[in-house]
Amino acid sequence: MGYGVIQIKNNKMQLLTMGAIELHKIESHFLRLQKIFERTQYLINEYQPDEFAIEAPFMGKNAQSMLKLGRAQGISMAAALEKNIPVSEYAPKKIKQSITGRGMASKEQVAGMLASLLKLKALPKHLDATDGLAVAVCHYFQLGKPQSEKTYSGWKSYIKENPGKTKG
Amino acid sequence: MGYGVIQIKNNKMQLLTMGAIELHKIESHFLRLQKIFERTQYLINEYQPDEFAIEAPFMGKNAQSMLKLGRAQGISMAAALEKNIPVSEYAPKKIKQSITGRGMASKEQVAGMLASLLKLKALPKHLDATDGLAVAVCHYFQLGKPQSEKTYSGWKSYIKENPGKTKG
Repeated sequence: MGYGVIQIKNNKMQLLTMGAIELHKIESHFLRLQKIFERTQYLINEYQPDEFAIEAPFMGKNAQSMLKLGRAQGISMAAALEKNIPVSEYAPKKIKQSITGRGMASKEQVAGMLASLLKLKALPKHLDATDGLAVAVCHYFQLGKPQSEKTYSGWKSYIKENPGKTKG
Repeated sequence: MGYGVIQIKNNKMQLLTMGAIELHKIESHFLRLQKIFERTQYLINEYQPDEFAIEAPFMGKNAQSMLKLGRAQGISMAAALEKNIPVSEYAPKKIKQSITGRGMASKEQVAGMLASLLKLKALPKHLDATDGLAVAVCHYFQLGKPQSEKTYSGWKSYIKENPGKTKG
């Protein structure tokens, strides 16, 4: 499970951190979720992000792997929710398209473009990390565009824009 | 999304509360997740449970619905994780089997048996609520049995039982 944190200063992107939460050594699904929760909480406390974005795959290997992925995402979204950070989501194609101009770009092409955009001297061993970073960069690119291009924005802005829809 | 809270006193079960989080009026997937998170936090603060159990379906309608279900579960598990409450999960068949003796029992049969076990005067309108309650009762029935029958127990006990497995 990869992540990337970027900062925007004077309309320029800067990498703050990226990495992958190593889960393959942890046998218990439950302990994996705990690790994801704690790491996300740590990253949020450390970098105090204003926005939070995740990848939202619409197809999966099978129902069971999608349930596990959903739990992992839900638990990391909870860490953002706790801090009232708006959450956005992007389809994998949208992320690739946004960064490389091609929705069917390979992981390596996305990583290469990110290295160029963020002036990275080296790519991380695990491309999971650049996958996470890609979501952050995609979100930045989308922020300037009309709201309708995003799947959803934070509930604060949602409530502001849709005052009648949040009751009940 | 249903829930049930029970108390065990002198080996007797007592219903504390049950209900269903009404989500169909909320259009945004994100606001639904927020509502699930907040309601779970509220229930945990209100009833201070020692244990937390959820249903773990192994089959779903499609990948997309499993992702959404997983997120909903992940977000409610985060509310338990925050408070260091051990989380367990049970397959739907296991829950039905545990309560009615039959893994293929209908929702109505499960609800009827719960009404009898907990001396309920009436069943709730939404059987989602009894579905949630069923998980709680199943978990109580399983607690007395050998550990191996559970999919996993809380990470505190897991760490105690598997001291070498939690590093890395």
